[in-house]
Amino acid sequence: MDLQDELTKRAAMFNAYWERFLPIKKPTKLYEASQHLPSAGGKRIRPFLTLTSCESVSGDIQKALPLASGLELIHNFTLVHDDIMDHSLLRRNLPAVHVKFGEPAAILAGDLLFAKAFAAVLDTSVEFTTFKLLQQDFIDCIIAICEGQQLDMEFEKRKTVTEQEYLDMISKKTGALFELAGKGGGMIGGGTRSEIAALQTYGMALGLAFQIWDDYLDMSSTATTLGKDIGNDIRNGKKTLIAVHSLTHATGKHKKLLDDVFGNHAASEQDVSNVYNLFRELGSVQYAQQRAEYFVNQAKDALTVLKPSDAKELLYQLIEYTIQREK
Amino acid sequence: MDLQDELTKRAAMFNAYWERFLPIKKPTKLYEASQHLPSAGGKRIRPFLTLTSCESVSGDIQKALPLASGLELIHNFTLVHDDIMDHSLLRRNLPAVHVKFGEPAAILAGDLLFAKAFAAVLDTSVEFTTFKLLQQDFIDCIIAICEGQQLDMEFEKRKTVTEQEYLDMISKKTGALFELAGKGGGMIGGGTRSEIAALQTYGMALGLAFQIWDDYLDMSSTATTLGKDIGNDIRNGKKTLIAVHSLTHATGKHKKLLDDVFGNHAASEQDVSNVYNLFRELGSVQYAQQRAEYFVNQAKDALTVLKPSDAKELLYQLIEYTIQREK
Repeated sequence: MDLQDELTKRAAMFNAYWERFLPIKKPTKLYEASQHLPSAGGKRIRPFLTLTSCESVSGDIQKALPLASGLELIHNFTLVHDDIMDHSLLRRNLPAVHVKFGEPAAILAGDLLFAKAFAAVLDTSVEFTTFKLLQQDFIDCIIAICEGQQLDMEFEKRKTVTEQEYLDMISKKTGALFELAGKGGGMIGGGTRSEIAALQTYGMALGLAFQIWDDYLDMSSTATTLGKDIGNDIRNGKKTLIAVHSLTHATGKHKKLLDDVFGNHAASEQDVSNVYNLFRELGSVQYAQQRAEYFVNQAKDALTVLKPSDAKELLYQLIEYTIQREK
Repeated sequence: MDLQDELTKRAAMFNAYWERFLPIKKPTKLYEASQHLPSAGGKRIRPFLTLTSCESVSGDIQKALPLASGLELIHNFTLVHDDIMDHSLLRRNLPAVHVKFGEPAAILAGDLLFAKAFAAVLDTSVEFTTFKLLQQDFIDCIIAICEGQQLDMEFEKRKTVTEQEYLDMISKKTGALFELAGKGGGMIGGGTRSEIAALQTYGMALGLAFQIWDDYLDMSSTATTLGKDIGNDIRNGKKTLIAVHSLTHATGKHKKLLDDVFGNHAASEQDVSNVYNLFRELGSVQYAQQRAEYFVNQAKDALTVLKPSDAKELLYQLIEYTIQREK
């Protein structure tokens, strides 16, 4: 099975299903605002992970569509609110929701997606016992994401952050959703306890690798490729793993450059470019790649528990994809 | 049974229970921000309504505590986000959450309360069938509140709004939560279909009377009594029932006064005071009182379905309280 084909196929299947949670009703502005990001596409990696995890334990992929929708709705809800908090202007090459619809409608649109996420999960066909576990995990996942975003914002204001703190933050902000996609897919698919645990470990490790790679991409691409504001991370003092590494290892004039520019909203293009180059010079970009590979290996190890199948093969390919993608 | 005694007693029982959903953890700022309004007290009318509705159909009041917590958490979540959207500075005589903790933490704190609300509902001890109905109603209620808030904001920008549009808006923004408090309490208490429908009707009518009375109070009290920004409603062009009535009935110089001042953010104290007086002159304040009484009677009529009990007596008293309270 080819990953790209399956990503496309499953995204189409997913999109056809989750549309029901995104109607256009009155008041139109609210519903249009809530649809803005979901209908802008996206790779649907979290739904793919949910569906394929379910399949990897011989489960019926259709049964995982509601949870996949719930997780993607939560993902989109957090993007809408995070963009307000982070003053981001672009998302998926489009104006952020608050830029297009205004901040009040964007706050509400996020809240609406949040509510719809629970409507999606409620459509899952499982026993009450499983449902309760799933619902509790879903709630815990959202709480973790809130905590992760708060930590991310607090880190921007701090001079330094340890790698452990960074990992804790991204495990909440990004890892938790991937973790539940794996675990929840396994639960709905009727996996054994050890299969479910393996998919949970896989999801978290994949999420960490994904986020570290995302930070790496932010640091090594142009606005056209990524659809995000370049230089923003440096000016905001965003504590990516690359930044954490540089901040820990810089001395002398390097340290002074970071002190002056990193987290300085008024930094010039040249300053930003110098920091960008310093991250390479200090080996921080390479270090981030290594750490991403570490989690990639963790994800691979976790999969050994699963029986051979096409779905398992896709989960392997998804790992490679995660650290090879360029957007 | 005395209503004031029971309000106090049930609020204490409720507060002791729902504390579990409001821990202080790391990141501390997020949890403190989310606790700011809940721990500031409040009348706990929605929990009271949930518990007493459950009791009125011979249900165990303890079983309704989770739903009561869920509804009060949703109420508080909406207050946090609404205050950001409405640029309100004060709430319950305290600085609004975004004023004290900043807007990003306030958005997240609202999101956290939202998630906790679902955690609370999940603790309800009912059969899966009932749980699903309850959960769907809970989600629909939140969606209605989002729609109501969007309509409320849109109405502020419009010149006129019909009474029917106003009633539709408050039935979503305020009525839906009261409606579910009554209905959900009845469901959890094991009420008959007609008892549950009666409590649902009662809750909605009570909510409408409550909101109309709230608008009336905003228009007839001082900042010290209400803990809200006085004059804000007039300057923001807020379409309360009083305003809707005046806007519909004003002619000549009265119409001109409203055109000039209502919805004018730069209006002077004197201008605001003139509009305030006009609302009386045109009989709009009296009209709002009459409409509140209409819904009060609707609520009373609904209760006739219930068997006589102390709880039923309290529900009657709650109606009177709703249109007699001064804050």
